[in-house]
Amino acid sequence: MRRRRFIGHAASLAAIPLVVRPPRRAPLQVNGARLNSWLSRFDAVGRTAGGINRVGYSEADLAGRAFALELFREAGLAPRIDAAGNIIGRMEGRDRSLPPIIIGSHIDSVTDGGNFDGPLGSFASLEVVRSLREQAVELHHPLEVAVWSNEEGGVIGSKLAVGDNAAVDLDSVARSGRTIREGIGIVGGNVARLDDEVRPKGSAACYLELHIEQGGLLEQAGLQVGVVQGIIGLRWFEVTIEGFSNHAGTTPMDQRQDAMLAAARFIVAVNEAVRSEPGRQVATVGRVIAEPNTRNVIPGRVTLTIDLRDLDPAKLTRFSAAFERIGREVGVATRTTFAFRQVTSSAPALADTSVMDWIDASAVTLGLSRQRMPSGAGHDAQELALIAPMGMIFVPSVGGISHSPREFTHAVDVVNGANVLLNAVLAVDRG
Amino acid sequence: MRRRRFIGHAASLAAIPLVVRPPRRAPLQVNGARLNSWLSRFDAVGRTAGGINRVGYSEADLAGRAFALELFREAGLAPRIDAAGNIIGRMEGRDRSLPPIIIGSHIDSVTDGGNFDGPLGSFASLEVVRSLREQAVELHHPLEVAVWSNEEGGVIGSKLAVGDNAAVDLDSVARSGRTIREGIGIVGGNVARLDDEVRPKGSAACYLELHIEQGGLLEQAGLQVGVVQGIIGLRWFEVTIEGFSNHAGTTPMDQRQDAMLAAARFIVAVNEAVRSEPGRQVATVGRVIAEPNTRNVIPGRVTLTIDLRDLDPAKLTRFSAAFERIGREVGVATRTTFAFRQVTSSAPALADTSVMDWIDASAVTLGLSRQRMPSGAGHDAQELALIAPMGMIFVPSVGGISHSPREFTHAVDVVNGANVLLNAVLAVDRG
Repeated sequence: MRRRRFIGHAASLAAIPLVVRPPRRAPLQVNGARLNSWLSRFDAVGRTAGGINRVGYSEADLAGRAFALELFREAGLAPRIDAAGNIIGRMEGRDRSLPPIIIGSHIDSVTDGGNFDGPLGSFASLEVVRSLREQAVELHHPLEVAVWSNEEGGVIGSKLAVGDNAAVDLDSVARSGRTIREGIGIVGGNVARLDDEVRPKGSAACYLELHIEQGGLLEQAGLQVGVVQGIIGLRWFEVTIEGFSNHAGTTPMDQRQDAMLAAARFIVAVNEAVRSEPGRQVATVGRVIAEPNTRNVIPGRVTLTIDLRDLDPAKLTRFSAAFERIGREVGVATRTTFAFRQVTSSAPALADTSVMDWIDASAVTLGLSRQRMPSGAGHDAQELALIAPMGMIFVPSVGGISHSPREFTHAVDVVNGANVLLNAVLAVDRG
Repeated sequence: MRRRRFIGHAASLAAIPLVVRPPRRAPLQVNGARLNSWLSRFDAVGRTAGGINRVGYSEADLAGRAFALELFREAGLAPRIDAAGNIIGRMEGRDRSLPPIIIGSHIDSVTDGGNFDGPLGSFASLEVVRSLREQAVELHHPLEVAVWSNEEGGVIGSKLAVGDNAAVDLDSVARSGRTIREGIGIVGGNVARLDDEVRPKGSAACYLELHIEQGGLLEQAGLQVGVVQGIIGLRWFEVTIEGFSNHAGTTPMDQRQDAMLAAARFIVAVNEAVRSEPGRQVATVGRVIAEPNTRNVIPGRVTLTIDLRDLDPAKLTRFSAAFERIGREVGVATRTTFAFRQVTSSAPALADTSVMDWIDASAVTLGLSRQRMPSGAGHDAQELALIAPMGMIFVPSVGGISHSPREFTHAVDVVNGANVLLNAVLAVDRG
């Protein structure tokens, strides 16, 4: 069947049987059974009693990468490892002058995590390639599949791929116990070439990522697909409350400078402030350290963290100011002092309007119910948004649970998500 | 001057110069300079960069006990170590059929503590003996000076002296790193004889203890002496709040089961409840442990402690019930559950009314301002109250600070306290 010499535009599709496509009415579909079987087999890789443990650069991560590399090869993609340790496979399109459409996700996990956060989008991307090849669909654009390295350690692979290098400390120790520098070497990257391989702005036509929602909104709304409007911005604060440690038995209630009471009032007031206006902003006090943390001593110091997120930068700024004002007021009322330190800040990464429309249209074509929604979690897509129009597709997480061995997405939702990804790729390609 | 053969009732006062006492107008006074010099010299024993470290059974405690034993000998008391490791010295009185008046305190410290909590009352008691001897005052009752062992470890020496043995686990490890059993052996006690040496109820005429207030009430009121009404009862609770751990970015505010928010509301409400009625009740949340205690995860569990104290057992019971009710209410409002466990309970130990009157009268005679007040801290006196009428004398702590290297009591207050103790002993002796 080596007749490609007669078909100029298909010159690069050596492995694909030549078929004259009839005009399609039904949308293209992936092989859902195959995709789910990959996920099912992958569930054994890095599985421990506590859950999935494929933290970036670990032995289990290497085993996961070997599994993924084999799927790349089976899809006819000759995978390469880029300087940052990301796995990249490329299927050429008709027009080699066009920049690639990139699709992908990650396969590393948190400690004691689940099997869907990352692998879903990674394997669905490979299934998209398989389906396009099997159904003899040729794209105008090249299509690249990326499995980004060490996403859970802070979107490290995608950060380095887009040149966001200043945000990465190569010598910080990752969860694997290895430094990022060591880890990149172990997975086959080359830190000496990081600068050479940076993808500049405009070097990709689009970036698409399918991911589990990691929240319970789709499930609760009874919807099948989420069209992500953007990845919400984040501010992390560390708040130190200074009171005065004293004897719990001998210090009258009206003479205390109780840092824990101040912290409690602050936590309640921050929660009320965030809930007092409409919107999807969230604020969490996740970490609280009291000192001396002894049952019969009034706490003299409390350190706590605030995690504030929203899609609107102005709202982040307004709530940040509100929290500091609340701290001052509670400080006066409790005779304590509040000190705020912003330890991290990330700007919201907005999805591209056209890309959202194409994802939307794909869901409609497939007869899937959907809604637009922000992503409360960070993803590699936020980094790719720095260099290309970005879009993300969400499918429901059962019970909204993620970063947990209880993380689960139904097989039908896995297939729905992959089908939306496939059709969105086609829509992007048509432009 | 060995003329005691002519004075039958003074047969036991070999060391005391014979003086015919004129009728006294001015109250008896101690040698305040001597007492303060002892405290000043003792400040070097167990002093470290962090504060005084003479924890029970430690090397520094042994050094402190050697210092005290020398003072016993200088006071003409032949000290003995009882089965529980307490140092006991006895000065006989005129009437050998009477039970002893016991005075004393302790000399061990907390970790990084101060030099007044304990040593004040111990050395003042020895100074009372010195003063009585030097001023040729003979009591009807025998007078015993006790330096109780390991007070800061849970009034261990006094507990064992009064037969409260069930409350002591001899094999628990004390702050010194030694078990109580080992520690008692090291300081010269004999655990095999504990039962034989128990002081039964009625075996003492009275127990008097001088102590620093460890609070700021006297200083703030500008008063010189506190007449302790009793040692407040205590209940310790451990509260476990169960919510549900979830992603801080993806979980909407109205769908959280945030155990830390529940804890914060609880802490605020407990504080308000305790302050909402008059009285000296105190409640403290001193220890708070959040899980997983990570900045980007909603806390799924919080464990906290409550330390509740008051002189009135009915109030302790009422507030305990109120706290459980608050927990239920906050649990419903935050979709969390509260579980309460009472880990310790001690009944209030009331001072004897007559003894309070005598202390009061002594302060009046000395021209010292005073007030009646509860003790918010535990003391050996609470144990001695089980076998004898008990009274305690407080003098001001600067800034109300105790269990801290900043613990301090002015020399003049040291002397005031010792003078009240001396005159209270005389008043008790007169009956």
